[in-house]
Amino acid sequence: MNLSLLYLIDLFGTAIFAISGVLLAGRLRMDPFGVMVLATVTAIGGGTIRDLILGATPVFWVTDTAYMWIIIITSLATMMLVRHPKRLPWYVMPVCDAIGLAAFVGIGVEKALAFQDSYLVAVMMGVLTGCGGGIIRDVLAREIPMVLRSEVYATACIAGGSAHVLLVQWGLAHSHAMLAGVVVTLTIRLTAIRWHLSLPTFALNK
Amino acid sequence: MNLSLLYLIDLFGTAIFAISGVLLAGRLRMDPFGVMVLATVTAIGGGTIRDLILGATPVFWVTDTAYMWIIIITSLATMMLVRHPKRLPWYVMPVCDAIGLAAFVGIGVEKALAFQDSYLVAVMMGVLTGCGGGIIRDVLAREIPMVLRSEVYATACIAGGSAHVLLVQWGLAHSHAMLAGVVVTLTIRLTAIRWHLSLPTFALNK
Amino acid sequence: MNLSLLYLIDLFGTAIFAISGVLLAGRLRMDPFGVMVLATVTAIGGGTIRDLILGATPVFWVTDTAYMWIIIITSLATMMLVRHPKRLPWYVMPVCDAIGLAAFVGIGVEKALAFQDSYLVAVMMGVLTGCGGGIIRDVLAREIPMVLRSEVYATACIAGGSAHVLLVQWGLAHSHAMLAGVVVTLTIRLTAIRWHLSLPTFALNK
Repeated sequence: MNLSLLYLIDLFGTAIFAISGVLLAGRLRMDPFGVMVLATVTAIGGGTIRDLILGATPVFWVTDTAYMWIIIITSLATMMLVRHPKRLPWYVMPVCDAIGLAAFVGIGVEKALAFQDSYLVAVMMGVLTGCGGGIIRDVLAREIPMVLRSEVYATACIAGGSAHVLLVQWGLAHSHAMLAGVVVTLTIRLTAIRWHLSLPTFALNK
Repeated sequence: MNLSLLYLIDLFGTAIFAISGVLLAGRLRMDPFGVMVLATVTAIGGGTIRDLILGATPVFWVTDTAYMWIIIITSLATMMLVRHPKRLPWYVMPVCDAIGLAAFVGIGVEKALAFQDSYLVAVMMGVLTGCGGGIIRDVLAREIPMVLRSEVYATACIAGGSAHVLLVQWGLAHSHAMLAGVVVTLTIRLTAIRWHLSLPTFALNK
Repeated sequence: MNLSLLYLIDLFGTAIFAISGVLLAGRLRMDPFGVMVLATVTAIGGGTIRDLILGATPVFWVTDTAYMWIIIITSLATMMLVRHPKRLPWYVMPVCDAIGLAAFVGIGVEKALAFQDSYLVAVMMGVLTGCGGGIIRDVLAREIPMVLRSEVYATACIAGGSAHVLLVQWGLAHSHAMLAGVVVTLTIRLTAIRWHLSLPTFALNK
């Protein structure tokens, strides 16, 4: 996968994740600053925790401010333009989200491999990059994080990240392994969206 | 602004923020340890996340333990002395809070400028230093963070931080730019407190 | 205390803390990924924040993946084997938890002393290592953190950590001081469990 293409998809994912933060903030009647905060943590929260854990500081969006500008512009545009989010076909946001998610996982795995050797940690960092922002968003909005409760969301990230590191381990070039991982994440996630798949939940007898 | 004066105001802000954590803990009937935790995260939570993101580790209160001693002494004194917080005139705590907030923003902006070049990131770090602790306090107390929902609180920080970096960009000495930024934050915040100003909230039609 | 014995107790504590995360997730009917996330943050959340604050990155479980494998295996085994957690005698989990907690505090204090000089910060890092994971677990599960509200839990950590640093300050070998601190934490915690002790809560008149 062309690295500048991946960078563009990464910025696209950042914008999509920011929009999902704005939409949640709108349901909670936050003020404009609250909207920006939710948009920001959703879009860069996962990657930020990843960079802190790996010791990759200053974190990525301090080094490259394109991410923050994307978030600011996207959030302002969403606040000004969107009043009736339900008029979009229902699948538009989930499909965009899946594209961003797949890119985030691939980037998280690659960054972890650049900073340390464990494949297990690399998969974890991919999942964290993809899912961490949404978890922080839901905690701030006082909801039990959606990805902890339902849908084949994190599972898609684990599968894509695992494919990615296995192919690297088998000697494939990083760019090809990442492309394959991104395709795996995206395929599983789109399948789950199309047929409303979820995993069984774990519930204890009381 | 004299740097040792700023340091004193910083410690004053730390004490005020700790008290606001203690008062919230008292409303939730926490045990003494819970009170200390809420006081600590309110007072140093924002600056801690700022230092982690900038890579300025160990964080500031590990290097200079005056902050922790201030928090411990203030919290114990508040627990022992305060039983009827409503007997104070209503504006005392908000005005003290505004003074601490303005100092925190100025310090956050200056620290960010010392560690990296982006003015956008510097303003964000100022806002994070001022508002981050209160957000963590409210998350631990299971409330939707107050600063995300109401009042011209974060907005004052954004204005003050922006004035600060603009004046630095125009060539003013850092100490004068910081003083101007602190005055802007404080003025807007005091105005909002005096006339109960808030921004319109962003709400989506369902 | 023999260091490899302490390492084994540390891994034991990691497993116990992971199980406590799994059991909470089971009460909330989370999906398997949510279960793994709660188990992971409970087991390594406190130590992770400690390492970030001290600047000890990459954090400990990136450097030594034994922690993650313990968490994964323990969580999967708990999900498969445990359906009726209430059939265990009530004191089994608290006593195991107390053993893990005491080890975590000792390790946290030692790591802090290796990275900086303040004894106050060292005690805080011990408490954070012991209590931080449970706090994050409860925030994700949308409960006010248990350790902020009840029982002589954090207090035991403060006492054990303080004993540990005082003995170091008085010239005792680190290994002996740590052993004494671990015994203090464990004794206080087991006493509190046996006789259901709690501290009075701090409540404000309204």
